[in-house]
Amino acid sequence: MGNCIIAQSGGPSSVINATLAGIVKANQTHPIYTKVYGGIHGIEGILAEQFVDITDMSEEENKILCQTPSSALGSCRYKLKRSNEADFINLFAIMDRYDITTMFYIGGNDSMDTIVALSEYAKCHGIEGRQFIGCPKTVDNDLCFIDHCPGYGSAAKYIATTALQTWLDVNCYTREEVFILETMGRDAGWLAASATLSGKVDLLVLPEVPFEKQSFYQAVRECLAVKNKCYIVVSEGARYGDGTYLSSETGGSDAFGHAVLGGAGQAIKDMLLRNGITKRAKVQDLSTAQRCHATEDSLVDVKEAFALGRYAHKQAEDPNYTCRMVGMLRKGEREYAVEYIDVDAHEVANVSKKFPKEWILDNYQGVSEEALNYMKPLIQGKLEIIYKDGLPAFMEPYTCK
Amino acid sequence: MGNCIIAQSGGPSSVINATLAGIVKANQTHPIYTKVYGGIHGIEGILAEQFVDITDMSEEENKILCQTPSSALGSCRYKLKRSNEADFINLFAIMDRYDITTMFYIGGNDSMDTIVALSEYAKCHGIEGRQFIGCPKTVDNDLCFIDHCPGYGSAAKYIATTALQTWLDVNCYTREEVFILETMGRDAGWLAASATLSGKVDLLVLPEVPFEKQSFYQAVRECLAVKNKCYIVVSEGARYGDGTYLSSETGGSDAFGHAVLGGAGQAIKDMLLRNGITKRAKVQDLSTAQRCHATEDSLVDVKEAFALGRYAHKQAEDPNYTCRMVGMLRKGEREYAVEYIDVDAHEVANVSKKFPKEWILDNYQGVSEEALNYMKPLIQGKLEIIYKDGLPAFMEPYTCK
Repeated sequence: MGNCIIAQSGGPSSVINATLAGIVKANQTHPIYTKVYGGIHGIEGILAEQFVDITDMSEEENKILCQTPSSALGSCRYKLKRSNEADFINLFAIMDRYDITTMFYIGGNDSMDTIVALSEYAKCHGIEGRQFIGCPKTVDNDLCFIDHCPGYGSAAKYIATTALQTWLDVNCYTREEVFILETMGRDAGWLAASATLSGKVDLLVLPEVPFEKQSFYQAVRECLAVKNKCYIVVSEGARYGDGTYLSSETGGSDAFGHAVLGGAGQAIKDMLLRNGITKRAKVQDLSTAQRCHATEDSLVDVKEAFALGRYAHKQAEDPNYTCRMVGMLRKGEREYAVEYIDVDAHEVANVSKKFPKEWILDNYQGVSEEALNYMKPLIQGKLEIIYKDGLPAFMEPYTCK
Repeated sequence: MGNCIIAQSGGPSSVINATLAGIVKANQTHPIYTKVYGGIHGIEGILAEQFVDITDMSEEENKILCQTPSSALGSCRYKLKRSNEADFINLFAIMDRYDITTMFYIGGNDSMDTIVALSEYAKCHGIEGRQFIGCPKTVDNDLCFIDHCPGYGSAAKYIATTALQTWLDVNCYTREEVFILETMGRDAGWLAASATLSGKVDLLVLPEVPFEKQSFYQAVRECLAVKNKCYIVVSEGARYGDGTYLSSETGGSDAFGHAVLGGAGQAIKDMLLRNGITKRAKVQDLSTAQRCHATEDSLVDVKEAFALGRYAHKQAEDPNYTCRMVGMLRKGEREYAVEYIDVDAHEVANVSKKFPKEWILDNYQGVSEEALNYMKPLIQGKLEIIYKDGLPAFMEPYTCK
């Protein structure tokens, strides 16, 4: 038996560690590797031989890992460039040295491109007995060819719960008020749309629909006339017809003058006040919290993320299984269920899945029943959280000693 | 037996409804009022005779009410002016008409001033058989003469949990990064300080300590040199020695040019980038969510808020009991426990309790062990939440039909 390595990459989620825990557990139940290594900080750490041995993780550690948000192994934004052959030579030499036959990479579409690059390099150079397997994760839910991404359900549950709670807060006063909830989602509106599960969203602004000021003002005015309140949800990636982000208007730029997203809510607030649409508006930007609020994880999401890890491990038994990403498709007509599938990593890499236009109601009025039926099963159940002294028990990030 | 009325006022919390539920429950177990009315939108609604009869609330409704954030009866910012006698005449006439002997007002220090004003008016005009009793609530924890306020523990638990989770998120990358968590707290640092329960806060900026740029920059630099990260928590009310709010620098003003708080985190981010202290900084403003995230309420907090309602009801049996606010003091040396007490509402009205200076460590280094020991018991336990279709079951706001 050889060994395997698992690494995580890209923006973390609150269930990315459950997939890691699933692979480790699978190898304990049915060992096909002598050692399971964790690579610290994705491909960057693997290239630097930053490994931890997680083969014999305890049952307790595995449970805590499942409820720990962010990437316990650390993440990276390092992208393996095909032009930089030194990295490839180095990586395959390290795999030889540690007798690593399989690399599991948990990440988004950039990570799947890494899987493709490594698999192709092996093929071109006649290197045998090396597998590269991708496991999906992204709160953005923008990976193609699979029903949904692990991480999305939990983020959606947190967003919808927060929408429900802040709606109650806003509605306790008699005064006229506009409330704007901003979610992540640079190119796809999945996260913003999940807020509508609360049943409280009046207007929804998605990146998929060009934002048009006058019709939006009119929608806000009409809502205020009826309710005296207007609860708006906006995706950070909301943009005008010419592609300009709403957030670019709030002067969002870093120290070097690069435009920075994340001010779409503030932009909407500013324009509503400046144009006299309302006199009172408040913004809640969910920011980082929405992708790491594991204490309210969806049980369905955690279980699926874990099961995907197990499935990837099972598929890896076939030595020819490489350049694949594992995933899920929805099956069954009546009750929600998924079947685990495999996708060619080429197909997933560097493309992203938008929120379907046909699910979006006109005039910022939210989403269709079909969209709600798609999202609802993903937020069901709540992971039982282990607390310690009033706070959730979490794994500290792995480090190399 | 006469009747009573309960109303809620000021900024809501996630347990203000538990106190309401406690009063209702107490009167079901031991009826001293024929009817328990809820006054919609505080004193404003009472003056408009906006009542709901909540005497016979079901056990299920009571449970759901306990886990519902915001003010189920609605809130108001209307302040009873002593100069406006018409309001007083109107209010006492309404009490006569509905045979209301007791008014319970759940709120902060402004609400306690209402209790004082009504009690004094009754006394001056020889009106007998009318009681005005205050029940405290405020996430800000700034009421004097009591150990802590219902609402604070749950907000503190949410803040510390979010600090722990966002810290994990920030720490998954190798890059240098500053993360700034902004909490509520215009004049007192209780909420910001609660983030230190996570054990992850590097620097803490409270309103009680004049902010000084150079020493702060130095503290950030030193932290980055050691950890490559710096996790900062700042209270919205952070200010310079001359009283200027940090947030005033972010151009925070509403449509009418009034300064608006809530940009202290952004102000810190801007100054760190502008002065080259770091190249990467991110802000998470917890905004409204921190006072209404009932799904993670502290069990201790909910139980105490409920018990305070029961205690207020019990005290009201004495017809001379008026112009009082019920509260809690900590007792017991070893294990945390509280005793319920009464405070003269005069003393509580219009004063606020700061975070003790002696609990604040120098150089933005957080708080003392004593402070942690004060806060820790308040976040213990987690309320078991009733979910429905993946989301928490909440009461819709009461309205008058």
